[in-house]
Amino acid sequence: MARWDPGAEERLKKAALELFTEHGYDNVTVTRIAERAGLTRRSFFRYFPDKREVLFAGSEQLPPAVASAVLAVAPGVAPLDAVLDALTSVGTRLAERVDGGRTRRAVIAASAELRERERTKFAAVTAAIRDALVRRGTDPDTAALLARTATVAFRHAFERWTESDGRTSFAECVDAVVATLRDAFTTRARAD
Amino acid sequence: MARWDPGAEERLKKAALELFTEHGYDNVTVTRIAERAGLTRRSFFRYFPDKREVLFAGSEQLPPAVASAVLAVAPGVAPLDAVLDALTSVGTRLAERVDGGRTRRAVIAASAELRERERTKFAAVTAAIRDALVRRGTDPDTAALLARTATVAFRHAFERWTESDGRTSFAECVDAVVATLRDAFTTRARAD
Repeated sequence: MARWDPGAEERLKKAALELFTEHGYDNVTVTRIAERAGLTRRSFFRYFPDKREVLFAGSEQLPPAVASAVLAVAPGVAPLDAVLDALTSVGTRLAERVDGGRTRRAVIAASAELRERERTKFAAVTAAIRDALVRRGTDPDTAALLARTATVAFRHAFERWTESDGRTSFAECVDAVVATLRDAFTTRARAD
Repeated sequence: MARWDPGAEERLKKAALELFTEHGYDNVTVTRIAERAGLTRRSFFRYFPDKREVLFAGSEQLPPAVASAVLAVAPGVAPLDAVLDALTSVGTRLAERVDGGRTRRAVIAASAELRERERTKFAAVTAAIRDALVRRGTDPDTAALLARTATVAFRHAFERWTESDGRTSFAECVDAVVATLRDAFTTRARAD
């Protein structure tokens, strides 16, 4: 085991993001990322299971964090509201920790492999929300639909927040997304 | 080029679905699917690029079909309504052609690889809807959000329709999904 290197993980993430942006995700090897971070290839794999995961570090904490937050909302709150409140608080904490947001988004947008991985990550969030809603007493079919819809709202709000470069709070981004969806569904209601 | 065999593609699909159900998707080879369909491995690849695609045959037609349908809706119709109308008509035609719906769903649900491929397919539908909405004059950000939400509704409606074994029309499934979402967002409006 190598000696304790507190900055290693952050250096690897920074090096990866720089190299992906400069040369394209597909053209960068793990060895090269490690070298730029002043580490070995073996050290890289001590922190990340593969090259893709360097862009999704910590994302495995998101589904359980969201599930806990949904279960922590007062029992009488309607299911979608409970999920949106939970996602707002979890997303706000996440937004404080994320850096290189726009650069990271651009790297993911340019790679089919990374977009696929991102969709898999969001699917895990959706599943966690659905299970939490069922535990709150929502029927499984409605829980699945609301979980998918809330994940779309969350993802979209996060992208807006990233685009705003921190000028807008994450909560404001969620509110704007929800307002757009509410208006869209209300128009539909009037049309019937 | 082999002689014309009009039933080959359908036989391959049927054989694949049977074998996946009997032995699990991961344990079935292309050779075995071809054999059960009375064909060679080479014939399989004349119809499908890989083992996964046998479950998604024709899905490449969905994004352009949805885009055309969105663009065909009268110009004054609100964006989400235009998309839901388009998805209802495309989905209704699709529902007439799909067979083995429940079996297929169970096979996909049991495999991480197939769920991933399915998400990629739906992402292509979302992109097609977004582009069509932008061509109708919706701003790109709203178009992306509504496209994602409509795809969730479409996917959920299709799953409900599959579960109903054809007892419910696809249009009724879409209406039920939209009603659930409308109620959820209206409750949110009242809470503000």
